[in-house]
Amino acid sequence: MRLADLPTPALVLDRGRLGRNLQAMSERAKALGVDLRPHMKTAKSAEVARRATAGHSGGITVATLNEAEYFADNGFTDITYAVGIVPAKLDRVAALQSRGVRMTILTDAVDMARAIAARGEALGTRFSTLIEVDTGDRRGGVPASSDDVIEIGRALHGNRGAALAGVLAHAGHSYDCASIAEVERVAEEERAGAVTAAERLRAAGMPSPTVSVGSTPTAVHARKLDGVTEMRPGVYVFGDLFQAGIRSCAISDIAVSVLATVIGHRRTDNRVLIDAGGLALSKDRSTAGHSFDAGFGLVTDLTLNPIAGARVVTANQEHGHVEGAGRLPFEILPRGAKVRVLPNHVCMTAAMYGRYHVIDGGDEVVAVWDRTNGW
Amino acid sequence: MRLADLPTPALVLDRGRLGRNLQAMSERAKALGVDLRPHMKTAKSAEVARRATAGHSGGITVATLNEAEYFADNGFTDITYAVGIVPAKLDRVAALQSRGVRMTILTDAVDMARAIAARGEALGTRFSTLIEVDTGDRRGGVPASSDDVIEIGRALHGNRGAALAGVLAHAGHSYDCASIAEVERVAEEERAGAVTAAERLRAAGMPSPTVSVGSTPTAVHARKLDGVTEMRPGVYVFGDLFQAGIRSCAISDIAVSVLATVIGHRRTDNRVLIDAGGLALSKDRSTAGHSFDAGFGLVTDLTLNPIAGARVVTANQEHGHVEGAGRLPFEILPRGAKVRVLPNHVCMTAAMYGRYHVIDGGDEVVAVWDRTNGW
Repeated sequence: MRLADLPTPALVLDRGRLGRNLQAMSERAKALGVDLRPHMKTAKSAEVARRATAGHSGGITVATLNEAEYFADNGFTDITYAVGIVPAKLDRVAALQSRGVRMTILTDAVDMARAIAARGEALGTRFSTLIEVDTGDRRGGVPASSDDVIEIGRALHGNRGAALAGVLAHAGHSYDCASIAEVERVAEEERAGAVTAAERLRAAGMPSPTVSVGSTPTAVHARKLDGVTEMRPGVYVFGDLFQAGIRSCAISDIAVSVLATVIGHRRTDNRVLIDAGGLALSKDRSTAGHSFDAGFGLVTDLTLNPIAGARVVTANQEHGHVEGAGRLPFEILPRGAKVRVLPNHVCMTAAMYGRYHVIDGGDEVVAVWDRTNGW
Repeated sequence: MRLADLPTPALVLDRGRLGRNLQAMSERAKALGVDLRPHMKTAKSAEVARRATAGHSGGITVATLNEAEYFADNGFTDITYAVGIVPAKLDRVAALQSRGVRMTILTDAVDMARAIAARGEALGTRFSTLIEVDTGDRRGGVPASSDDVIEIGRALHGNRGAALAGVLAHAGHSYDCASIAEVERVAEEERAGAVTAAERLRAAGMPSPTVSVGSTPTAVHARKLDGVTEMRPGVYVFGDLFQAGIRSCAISDIAVSVLATVIGHRRTDNRVLIDAGGLALSKDRSTAGHSFDAGFGLVTDLTLNPIAGARVVTANQEHGHVEGAGRLPFEILPRGAKVRVLPNHVCMTAAMYGRYHVIDGGDEVVAVWDRTNGW
């Protein structure tokens, strides 16, 4: 099957680009002296996870319990669920543990740490738990210098139902950085915050075997990760226009695109319609305000050459409205012509699909890889 | 199972509200003297489609061929695929026809009409085809007064591989109307455009058995549909905050919500985190700029009572950041507490789920209905 013959919209993954992205991050982790525990929230694919963990411990990170279950089904046995846990989710974690999966969970609250320990004891299992540290993202986490770090540690450590696994930080605010220098500063704050929290636990007589950091921008730009044991970037596996906009990757690194078909012309409006709209691309507008606002995605030909600055400017449910920087070349975009759309935010776009159509630079579909979705 | 016991995030459908929405639109169609061919792009659910078509012809509208195949599998035999067709998609349409489904397709181009007729003849089938008429939406469609209407009609009519089914208009620009008076005007333009195109075909000696209009706002507010044969509203089945904002429904009509769990507190920021983020809610921001901007969704308690103006103000992949109009009542939102989130744009939100957890006003899950996604 060739790209031109695929039903559209379809999700296309370039294996060569993927491989180069994985290789670069693997080398970075090794150069920085840390394990790579890739965040599989982006790819949600066992085939990608196997390649991303090659040469490292084999541990992965996930954002949902559905992902944890999918990767366990696919033979992964060391999984960090990096979203703050609540009691109602502990039984699914315990079920994975009873299958032999080494699960690690996350909390930033003393009452939750106590609930984790109590539930572990009641279930006859032990929940390995990280303390979430906030280094400026203002999402989950307690400040590295707060009493909470020690109190949560004490609620977990030396308990039959829980084990203190260490600390975890996520500098999501690296996405808001205007320059690489700023990302470097945020990366250093992320590192220092995680290490500080770990050292405070140790000074209080508790262990912190894991010191985990990670976001794609900080993983790409961190100057050192001294004291850190692992990093958890995710979107680097594919890259996207947002990451290119903040210089975590180049546009030529983006490994995932949406294959679409031209379904209409509006010559008077200098506009083409494609069959990739809000569902096929997602409604993510994260490049809004960037130096290049890609609308809902950048439109290219089948070989990923941009088409006269063409972008999806409006996204109805199943219609994408494409406009160019100048006149659109309608002659190369007849109804029925195939195009590819580079995504703004690939985590959101890929989530609309159940599989990747894998190519290797050319236009031949060499494999179909599944991915999981939902919760 | 009770709502409070469901894993989150989960999609909840209130059967009572659904029933009232369906009843109201059914009565409107009857009062206006037209068939109701509900657009199933919103619900993508056979259970909803069966209820929505009760008392009408049983015909439905879909936005993808995947939907057409799903509904055919569920016994629907009269399906309009209301997105401009391209040649590569005709074989899937033909396969449905060979299963006994009466498919109707759509075009706005003479060359496509000829390709449809040729492919139908080659396949030994006949493609029943509507001409798409643009009444101001500037998406698909030709102007009702254009020569194209007649030319497309001639390319389809009296041909062995195609049949001219009539005309179809979609006033998607009703979504941009600032007042009900404006929606009424757009609805009348939609009606008049469709009827004009049909009359021009008839005057040229061609049939137009179908004269189809429809968007939820115009279906709700049209004052008359003289000359029209059917309407195709879709989002009315559930309603959402965007539709409430343009007064196509009331907030108390919204039948679908996302069940979520409080997973974190940021008291210093007067903010709560829930486990419904950009994937669970979608990144749709269509209420931006409305008199009430709901962020990524309005947060309520389990019985749909608003919580101090709480909205999801930021949506990371699996985290929703909730802020209130004033101080958030943290005491009723402990970690682990369940909330519900009313969606901005329910077509986008529902598409993130494979099933509806159905309730009937109370908190008991009385049924689970599947839905289809993808292409």
